[in-house]
Formats: sequence, structure tokens, C-alpha cells
Amino acid sequence: MSPIKVTVIGSGNWGSAIARIVGETAAQYSNDFNPAVNMWVHEEIWDGMKLSHVINEQHENPKYLPGKKLPENVVAVTDLIEACKDSDLLVFVVPHQFVSGVCEQLQGHLKDGVLAVSLIKDDVLHCRVEGNERPLDEAGLMAIHKMGGIRLVSEEIQDILHIDVAVLMGANLAPEVANDNFCEATIGYEGSAETRALLKKLFQTENFRINVVKDAHTVELCGALKNIVACAAGVTDGLGYGDNTKAAVIRLGLMEITKFVEHFYPGSNLETFFESCGIADLITTCYGGRNRKVCEAFVKTGKPLKVVEEELLKGQSAQGPLCAEEVYGMLKHFEMEAKFPLFCAVHKICSGEMKPTDLIGCLRHHPEHRSK
Amino acid sequence: MSPIKVTVIGSGNWGSAIARIVGETAAQYSNDFNPAVNMWVHEEIWDGMKLSHVINEQHENPKYLPGKKLPENVVAVTDLIEACKDSDLLVFVVPHQFVSGVCEQLQGHLKDGVLAVSLIKDDVLHCRVEGNERPLDEAGLMAIHKMGGIRLVSEEIQDILHIDVAVLMGANLAPEVANDNFCEATIGYEGSAETRALLKKLFQTENFRINVVKDAHTVELCGALKNIVACAAGVTDGLGYGDNTKAAVIRLGLMEITKFVEHFYPGSNLETFFESCGIADLITTCYGGRNRKVCEAFVKTGKPLKVVEEELLKGQSAQGPLCAEEVYGMLKHFEMEAKFPLFCAVHKICSGEMKPTDLIGCLRHHPEHRSK
Repeated sequence: MSPIKVTVIGSGNWGSAIARIVGETAAQYSNDFNPAVNMWVHEEIWDGMKLSHVINEQHENPKYLPGKKLPENVVAVTDLIEACKDSDLLVFVVPHQFVSGVCEQLQGHLKDGVLAVSLIKDDVLHCRVEGNERPLDEAGLMAIHKMGGIRLVSEEIQDILHIDVAVLMGANLAPEVANDNFCEATIGYEGSAETRALLKKLFQTENFRINVVKDAHTVELCGALKNIVACAAGVTDGLGYGDNTKAAVIRLGLMEITKFVEHFYPGSNLETFFESCGIADLITTCYGGRNRKVCEAFVKTGKPLKVVEEELLKGQSAQGPLCAEEVYGMLKHFEMEAKFPLFCAVHKICSGEMKPTDLIGCLRHHPEHRSK
Repeated sequence: MSPIKVTVIGSGNWGSAIARIVGETAAQYSNDFNPAVNMWVHEEIWDGMKLSHVINEQHENPKYLPGKKLPENVVAVTDLIEACKDSDLLVFVVPHQFVSGVCEQLQGHLKDGVLAVSLIKDDVLHCRVEGNERPLDEAGLMAIHKMGGIRLVSEEIQDILHIDVAVLMGANLAPEVANDNFCEATIGYEGSAETRALLKKLFQTENFRINVVKDAHTVELCGALKNIVACAAGVTDGLGYGDNTKAAVIRLGLMEITKFVEHFYPGSNLETFFESCGIADLITTCYGGRNRKVCEAFVKTGKPLKVVEEELLKGQSAQGPLCAEEVYGMLKHFEMEAKFPLFCAVHKICSGEMKPTDLIGCLRHHPEHRSK
């Protein structure tokens, strides 16, 4: 087998942090990987120079990851098709709203058998109302586009490019990864054990520890749904509840995540929720993340969510309320609201339909407390 | 069946908080329970009066739970045997060091078929070196006493009184429970489904939500072992690591808890770790508890652990370092140190054998990161 050619699609904060890693490992394992790693850069001007030139000359991305050297074998390429056409492995790390555009541009320009890995964390589910059939047929796809519909980023890539997609998620924010702080990630990939081993080799370093599991949908859904739970955690913080109430809310949220995944993507492995993508990412998001922060302030100040978001996040958005809205639409459609009281309450609180103080009332008779 | 007579053995902060609950539910479900609930009070003088008199006249424990009314059907009794001799259900809620003394006094004075429920949270494991056989024979018991040996509080009660023992654990500190904050608990009981349902009825209120599981040892071990993980979390805080590193440490600690339980008490159910006794209690302990706090200060100040403990806890002790010492002894005896690098590192750091900065080095090649 000839060495695997890798392209990182994206060069923001997270894209640059991950390019540091795969640049290093591709050079280290040159029997497996082509050491020349492409990084697609959406060209822009930085300090009077082209950003791509700066990256290729200074081996640093001064705009999005200043002060961190990129390996010299990472090469910035500004033409998307040029960056990807000879690649065997595409690492997607662009904001989720750009995924479909990127994929459409790449249609017809990729090698056979190319594999994608999605590292896109700001996932918002889109409600998919046709039920559970996989793979989706043409009519199913049309319905998604017309009616809104739950669709994961990995499915979006797969649907447009008809290629295999793995995901990498976990408690690993770009700044900490870029600082070489010890952290973990979970890769989800349903394909061969050989490819799973190669993915681990490509992404794992001494300070970025990888576990690979098979149920990729679980990994990806944990990444999206945790933000809803973080909103609930923020509401409890805003209401001034103690540690135990918050822990109960986080736990009940985790139970809803497991039930949601099991219902809509059957076949998940309970152990996957113990991985970095599961409890670890959930914990950091519920104690430190922006969804928690926004919802805490929303409850404390009584200002509209949009206003709080603008004040606190300066242009970024909190995914939790959006995700809760999509999930709520889906649960309502399937008449499953009673099974997911926390998810539903978060949507109703964020949309102003329910008072924050009613959150606990919704959880008191949670299905989790029924005798087992 | 005649109504179940309940005695709460203990009247401290946690004992009084739980007496408020079982007093209420015993009166509410008077077909199942005798509404007159005894509470054994170790007599002392409070404000010139006998504490037991104050409790029985003012229906409040002004020393240990001031400002919270006890139901009038909770009766303080100062004679231990008198308090327990007609009881069907004994709720143990005394400090762990008093358990054996209490049990020895009760020997020969209990009704047949009496059930105990241990709510004792400050559990320290005692190293048991004879392996895994249950029930222990006389020789095994002797060996425990002679050599030290892992022994759970529930086992201690069982070994002395030869009665069935359930446990109640979870993310539920006495002050929050006494304030009627919403929180959860897990009961572990291996006996009949009927008894499990009765236990749930006795302990559950609108704000104290109960799940009952069968693997009681898992429930109890989670309660003890979480303190070791909280020490590791405190070390990462003391070293100034970020959220993701801390989340990775907590997650690896949880994985060691699951492996430890499965090895020494086979037959645990993975789902039990998702209960309040598992992740919820672990999270609150790693973010808020005293073990975390002591270890953070230990690392930051460089003072001996004992000194930090005295300064911060004012007479109370942190169970994590003691528990880590017992667990380390056990792992060493069975030559299993390599499988539990976090547990071992916590002991070595707390005992001064290892620098706190070496913690992460111990986790980098954690068995959890091996290909699965």
C-alpha cells in the first residue's frame, strides 16, 4: 500500500492545532503516511501579506494560532480541489455551515476510496423526520432538505460525496491541544480494524491520547447533545442551586443522551459514553463551556437569550439552544416528549415558553426514576 | 405483614437529614411502615439540656441540623439496644469508625430477619488480602483483622451481625438534602424485588429521588474510590492544568473504578456507574469536595498533607489519601499496579514518594489507551 496522503480542510484555531499533530505523526510514520500534509487555507490578508504565504514561510498561523510552530511538512494550499485531489484522507475542520459548500466543490474531484474524518464540533442537529432508515434514499434526502431533519455533519459529508466518514470528538479544546496539554479524544469509525489503527496512529501523540470505537454516530451525537445538557446546567447555576442538584441535572441529561442515541441510531455501545466524547466532554462543557455561561446569565439577568449571547460571546453563538430546538421538534413529531423532559425543558426555557424555575419540576418524575 | 419498624442509628448532620425523610415517608405510608421512627442519639449536653430531650420536645436537632424541623413521629432514644430491639430496618448513619462498636453492642439483641441500610459515606477501604471468596469463613475474618484487608462498611455490619445489608449513596450532601434541594441517591440491594420497592418508598421524596440497583458493592465502592480520583483532580488543579486535562484525569479515574470493582467484586453492572452513586457523585467530589481542595492546596503550597488538612478541614480528615494507601497496598499485593496507574500515583504523590508533576507521565500510557 502506498503511503496515505492527508489533507486538513480548514486552518482556523482547531484546524491549525490538529495540523500540528498530523504533521508530526505523518512525518514520524512515513511508511504509513505521506509526510507532506496539505492544509487548505481560505486565503485572506494578514498584516499586508497573504496568510498562506505567511504559513508556508514562517510555519505558523499568526492569525488563528499565534506562537505555535507548525511542522514544516504541513503545506498551506489555497485551492480546495488542488489541496484534496490526490488525498486519501480528508480531515474536515471547518465551521459546520461551510461543510455542504466545501463538499459540493469537491464532488467529482476526489480519489476513489478516500476517507473523511470530521472534527467539526459546533454541530447542530437538523431535524430528520422520516424515521430511521439508513442509508437514506433520494426521497429521504429531499425530505431532509425540505422539512429540516436531523442530519449529522458526517451524514452531510457522506450524502454529498458518497465516501466513508469517521469522526473525532472529545474533551479537547483547541487552545489546550495547541499547548500540548494532556488530553484525550475519541475516534468513531465503523470500518475496518486496519483503518481504525491507522487513524489512531495519525492522531495520537504523547499528549493527545486516542481511543477508537466503532459506533461513530454515538461519538458525534454526544458532541451535539452535550450542549443541551450544558444549558440545563447553566440554568441550575443561574438559579443558585447547589452542587448536588447540578450533578443530578447533568446525570439525567446524560441518560437522555444515551436514550436518544439508542432510539434514533440503534446499536450504540454503552461503553462509548465512558469515552472522552461522552462523560469527559460533557463534564467540561457543563462546568466551563459557553452554553453553560450563556444560560446562567440568561437566568440571572432576565435579558433575552440573543442579547446575552451577543454580550458574552462576541459574535460566536451558543449551539445548545439551537440544538434543543431541533431536538424538540423531532421529539414532538414522534410524540416522545415525555421520555426526554430535560431536552424539552431546555428548549422551552430558552424560547421563553417556560420559566427557568420550572426546570426542576420537569425532572422530578423523570422516567429514569421509575423502578427498574 | 405487620408494618416495618425503622430505626435511624445516628443523629449527626446526615442522620438528622435522613430522619426528616424517613419520618415523613413512614408516616405517609403507614400501611407499610410503623410511623414511629426511632432515632438513636448518643446523649450529650446542649445548651445545658440533654440533646435527646431537646429533640423530643422541640422536634429539631439544634446541634447538628439547626433550623430544620424533624417530623414529630421521629423519637430520640438514647439507649442503643432499646432503640433497635423491635426494629425491622436499621439505618446506619454513624461515622465509620463507630460501626464495629455499635454492631458489637447490638449482637444478640435484634429481631430475626432485620435489614440494615448503610448510609455511611466516609468509607475507607481496609485491605483484604485473602482474595475474592464470599462469604468469608472464620479464618478469612481472622486474617482481615490481623493483616488489614479491604472491607466495606456493609461487610463489617454483615460480618458482625449476620444480617442483610443494603447501601444508599450518591451525590447528596446533608446540607443540600436538609434544604430540600433536588437531588438523587442510589440504593444498592441484592435481595428481593419487594424489599427493593419498600426501600425506595421509604427513602424517596419529591426532592430526593431514588434509583435502586442490585449490585450493592458497586454502589458502595464508588463512594469510597471516588475520593482517590478527587485527589488526582485536585493535583491537576494545583498544577494549573486546564479543563480538558482535568476531564481526562477524572475519566481515567472512573475507568479505574470500574476495573477495580469488576476485578474484586465481579458481576457489577456497567449501568450502575451511570447512577447518582457513580458519575454524579464523582463529578461533585472532583469539582467541589474536600479531597480535591486538600490536594490542590498540598500541591500549590508544598506543605505536608497533614498540615494542609488541619488548616483547611479543621479536624475533619480527607478520606482520599487513606483510601489510596489501602488500595495501593492491595494492588501491590496482587501485582496489579500497572493496571491502575492513577490510583497508584495518587498514593505515591500523597505519601511524598512522587512529585505531583509526575502525575501526567503516569497516565500517558494508561491501559485505557490501548487499542480495543
